[in-house]
Amino acid sequence: MERLFATYQIETPLEVAEAAAMLAGEQSCGTFIKIPGETDALKERFAARVESITEQESVTEPSLPGGKPSPDGRFRRAEIVVSWPLENFGANLPTLVSTVQGNLYELRQFTGLKLVDLKIPPCFAEPFPGPRFGVPGCRELTGVEGRPLIGTIIKPSVGLTPDETATLVETLVQAGIDFIKDDELMANPPHSPFAARVEAVMRVINTHADRTGKKVMFAFNITDELEAMQRHYDRVVAAGGTCVMVSLNSVGLVAGKVIADRGQLPIHGHRNGWGMLNREPAIGIEFPAYNKLWRLAGVDQMHVNGIDNKFWESDDAVVRSIDDCQEPFLNGACPLPVVSSGQWGGQAPETWRRTQTVDLLYQAGGGIAAHPDGPAAGVKALQRWWEVAVDGWSMEEAVSRDALLERSWETFGKKG
Amino acid sequence: MERLFATYQIETPLEVAEAAAMLAGEQSCGTFIKIPGETDALKERFAARVESITEQESVTEPSLPGGKPSPDGRFRRAEIVVSWPLENFGANLPTLVSTVQGNLYELRQFTGLKLVDLKIPPCFAEPFPGPRFGVPGCRELTGVEGRPLIGTIIKPSVGLTPDETATLVETLVQAGIDFIKDDELMANPPHSPFAARVEAVMRVINTHADRTGKKVMFAFNITDELEAMQRHYDRVVAAGGTCVMVSLNSVGLVAGKVIADRGQLPIHGHRNGWGMLNREPAIGIEFPAYNKLWRLAGVDQMHVNGIDNKFWESDDAVVRSIDDCQEPFLNGACPLPVVSSGQWGGQAPETWRRTQTVDLLYQAGGGIAAHPDGPAAGVKALQRWWEVAVDGWSMEEAVSRDALLERSWETFGKKG
Repeated sequence: MERLFATYQIETPLEVAEAAAMLAGEQSCGTFIKIPGETDALKERFAARVESITEQESVTEPSLPGGKPSPDGRFRRAEIVVSWPLENFGANLPTLVSTVQGNLYELRQFTGLKLVDLKIPPCFAEPFPGPRFGVPGCRELTGVEGRPLIGTIIKPSVGLTPDETATLVETLVQAGIDFIKDDELMANPPHSPFAARVEAVMRVINTHADRTGKKVMFAFNITDELEAMQRHYDRVVAAGGTCVMVSLNSVGLVAGKVIADRGQLPIHGHRNGWGMLNREPAIGIEFPAYNKLWRLAGVDQMHVNGIDNKFWESDDAVVRSIDDCQEPFLNGACPLPVVSSGQWGGQAPETWRRTQTVDLLYQAGGGIAAHPDGPAAGVKALQRWWEVAVDGWSMEEAVSRDALLERSWETFGKKG
Repeated sequence: MERLFATYQIETPLEVAEAAAMLAGEQSCGTFIKIPGETDALKERFAARVESITEQESVTEPSLPGGKPSPDGRFRRAEIVVSWPLENFGANLPTLVSTVQGNLYELRQFTGLKLVDLKIPPCFAEPFPGPRFGVPGCRELTGVEGRPLIGTIIKPSVGLTPDETATLVETLVQAGIDFIKDDELMANPPHSPFAARVEAVMRVINTHADRTGKKVMFAFNITDELEAMQRHYDRVVAAGGTCVMVSLNSVGLVAGKVIADRGQLPIHGHRNGWGMLNREPAIGIEFPAYNKLWRLAGVDQMHVNGIDNKFWESDDAVVRSIDDCQEPFLNGACPLPVVSSGQWGGQAPETWRRTQTVDLLYQAGGGIAAHPDGPAAGVKALQRWWEVAVDGWSMEEAVSRDALLERSWETFGKKG
């Protein structure tokens, strides 16, 4: 019988083995009192199993409130691996989630619990084909090879009319951009109805493509109720668009998979709200587990934050997320990591140094729109930053050797 | 213009007013650098507004990692209210979520951020009709008036065949139960295919209903991919079932609303994973906000934990959740609070004392199945506990005055 494996970082007032057994029991056969019908044979077949325990340090203060008191005043930390027989849930993604992330965080036997990673059985490859486009599909649709896709976002987040948006898009496609996205706060508001925005934006993009052969990928934010998402998806397909964006945490796994399963457009997965799930070390989910769930759902482009970003996330976490996207997983394509947040190009050398990949969608907002020599100079600078990064230049070398990059640094990088 | 209001509990290394303004900016017009097109008129129309600030204590250690350093070493706590013009997102529930819960938890300007409550504009009543059944609908379907619905759960969580499940159901319906539910870990596994389980269980329930006039409500766990959820929903309707269960956090708001919108069956909303969203005081979402989002989606029965539960949640939090379910909200029915986790009846006096309502689904698992005199005695004891609770008896009075309750207490309540 194939099994699902989940790795957790835990903290417990109990002995680690006892807490781990409790978790396994609660998430398979268990209830709080022995009841009729719970035979040993049934337990043997369906019970979750503690596969390994790696004890770590202990602390004297519990990380989360509401835990049981510790008999010896210690709260023990450990990494544990638990496995379940696939038979318990079958090819049912939300029930898999309830199994590995359900009533666990609630248990008083834990004062910390984070789902770190998942190992999904190979038989999931068939029901969950994964990203239909991913890195190769996005490269093919944009015609960009050998360097990151350079992307940007339409700002202000809200307020622009479809025509104003199209005017910005005109400037950006003229500037040589590869990718543009709606803001996650911009979906289908009265001042920018989705259909009108698609029409206005795609007119610009299609005209440019007809003239130059370069079709800029625009991620239209279809985040909405399901029927609207499907209608909007069709609208993008009909207009010759090549991408839709979904706010993953707001929409949820099941509707996300419905959209990805349509298979005609790459799904740009926006992670907004990720901080709620990840920022507190003692609770939540780590990116490798989160990413696998969304790869199962079929997301093609996954936000990973960026080096030296404006959010709380550390560079180490960003690097780990980029690396994770490159790990083969079942049969789906690898998702394209979307590097964003406070990016202006100067982070390219460090991003390259630490990840050694150009399979990225590198997004800059202000870094393009607010470039003092105009957006075309902004795009050119970003491309140049990536060229010198791959050539092994540090940021400091880049700034001292290249006037274009010096100018970019003067504007965006020179702090305080 | 109607506005949406969100209340947050925050902690910040900055001045509270500055942090609040930052939040409002980030979640409406903002980007990290001033760009062309961001006019004052546009800001006036679309910007989020800080409506109020209630400063609280300050602390010397940040609750969350990754925040900005505090210039004076203080991290200030406050409750703030922020509002958005409805025009920013329209009747689009996931984009509403991205607006109030999106890239906020991520901000280094906060070392704590919890969404406490929402005030939703009245015009949401039309696109979001809310729970179709709620308290009155569930009472009508079960024929239970004037007391809580008494419910239980099929255990073991996984492993039983449809026939074994039906045998347990037979015992429970004979025992006089009002409501039974699948475990959240039991959906459509190979050993208990959904269709076969519905058929076996509903044969028992329908036969009993034909004989006695009492139709027990069974919440079949349809949690699955969307197409399967819809197929399973139809199966329950066709078999004469009266409820389906959905693991809310695993499925997500959009698919949850699709299912609720079908309107033929009450939706039993299982909150598994709630601890991840709520347990850490510095991050996440509080029940009043969470409950409103799911009321918008149309959930009819909402888990609220129980007094003296086996999880981390405090009695105060449980009481607040029950109270919150009774608040009128737009035009939908009030959801039926599902009281569960370690309940055996002895918590009824305290539950009544603090909430003064019998509009509850009171669930006991082991408290019924493991009653020494059999499940019928377990059900009878629970009903009796609620009678004496409403009569104002304390647990101690109940145990000393009533042999049935004394026996229940001897089995489940007498600790250590």
